[in-house]
Amino acid sequence: MRKQILVINDDGITSKGIKALVEAVQDLGDVHIVAPNSPQSGMGHAVTIGNILKIKEHSFSLDVASSHSISGTPVDCVKLAIYKILDSKPDLLVSGINHGSNSSINVIYSGTMSAAVEGAVENIPSIGFSLLNHHPDADFTVAKEVAKTIAEEVLEKGLPTGVCLNVNIPKVNLEEFKGIKVCRQSAGYWKDDFEERVAPNKETYYWLKGEFTNLDKGDDTDEFALSHGFASVVPTQYDLTAHHFISALNFWELSSDK
Amino acid sequence: MRKQILVINDDGITSKGIKALVEAVQDLGDVHIVAPNSPQSGMGHAVTIGNILKIKEHSFSLDVASSHSISGTPVDCVKLAIYKILDSKPDLLVSGINHGSNSSINVIYSGTMSAAVEGAVENIPSIGFSLLNHHPDADFTVAKEVAKTIAEEVLEKGLPTGVCLNVNIPKVNLEEFKGIKVCRQSAGYWKDDFEERVAPNKETYYWLKGEFTNLDKGDDTDEFALSHGFASVVPTQYDLTAHHFISALNFWELSSDK
Repeated sequence: MRKQILVINDDGITSKGIKALVEAVQDLGDVHIVAPNSPQSGMGHAVTIGNILKIKEHSFSLDVASSHSISGTPVDCVKLAIYKILDSKPDLLVSGINHGSNSSINVIYSGTMSAAVEGAVENIPSIGFSLLNHHPDADFTVAKEVAKTIAEEVLEKGLPTGVCLNVNIPKVNLEEFKGIKVCRQSAGYWKDDFEERVAPNKETYYWLKGEFTNLDKGDDTDEFALSHGFASVVPTQYDLTAHHFISALNFWELSSDK
Repeated sequence: MRKQILVINDDGITSKGIKALVEAVQDLGDVHIVAPNSPQSGMGHAVTIGNILKIKEHSFSLDVASSHSISGTPVDCVKLAIYKILDSKPDLLVSGINHGSNSSINVIYSGTMSAAVEGAVENIPSIGFSLLNHHPDADFTVAKEVAKTIAEEVLEKGLPTGVCLNVNIPKVNLEEFKGIKVCRQSAGYWKDDFEERVAPNKETYYWLKGEFTNLDKGDDTDEFALSHGFASVVPTQYDLTAHHFISALNFWELSSDK
């Protein structure tokens, strides 16, 4: 039986990146697209609980098994796909290809990666792909090769329970591309700023603008790999427990022996 | 100099939970409130990047150093507080008290905890508090005692870089309350479902409804503590790398030696 592949993204069902991802994986199985009807970048792991959701059949530009657009977040797409649209859990969930990096700290803000993490929560082998190029008309040639290679491996080998992959692809052409490296998440943050503007009605409003800052000097990080022409693969999980601090915390006076 | 305490939440600036949190910490320092102007439950680590943000001075029902409502997510509140509203980084960030649990897998969907995680990213000692009671008029007596105890300890001892605390309080009265336990995040998930309805215009729409399922038999988890009358404290961090899978992944054929 052919493998069933669920394709999600956060830039919306009409973005170039999701088409590139379908092209990359369509030879590996039957493709089912469930993607937001509008851009959802920066939505993190948001889920729609105080509002309604709508599902629309979507005529995708490539030949796929099914295609639906959703009036919600990437995580909503995963939940609707699994619990409402598909007959059974897919063999593989791929998310992206995102227009822009989801390396380092970006993983926690990313709708693309939240869809992959939600897949892992649901015990589906899941991968998020992101290209370090925000341009709507970005060149996905290298990214498609990387996506196909890694999707094939995951379909063959599976992933451990609770683990998905965060794959980022540098903005290079095929000649410059150095290969794929397994990495850890780099320690970095966004040094943010807000641009202040005044609306026609004299009300002040703000636009977020930030600058990513990598603080991590390690050569085993995703940031290091990407800056040296490699695609980075970070195995990613959602147990946020800081296990290394549990024993020290047990020395605190928290009156737990009441 | 008095400590500066930033108070955030995800249920909105007029919720009972944020008032309870201010009451719990107001003796420990100067309180600055920066909270959403509307409920933001389930927003996860969403950040507003494609839209504008507004800041309004808010007349809070208790005497505080400053109070602002924000037209955005809990993470937006943290960023605006740090980079626009406050003169300097606060000594402590507290988020909540959330109406409803953020134990186990809920940590990744939670706006309350995402604010605390964002505080940790910004190197501010940060704590998220949640009460296992969704009622708008819930009794916060036990939660306030717990919040004060833990906030005092964190102000005194600090937290390691990149670590915040996820504190959940059971729905019990003071007599039933057993104390505070340091725990790890329980492995669980939401078995979701969607209720299908038809709008007056004949269009079908969906409401998410799910049931939390704890899969973890450990007696060192937050779920175990909460079900036995204890408040749970899970040290929480944002390096999502699945470090235990890195060496196995390096055996895969990813043509990285091109």
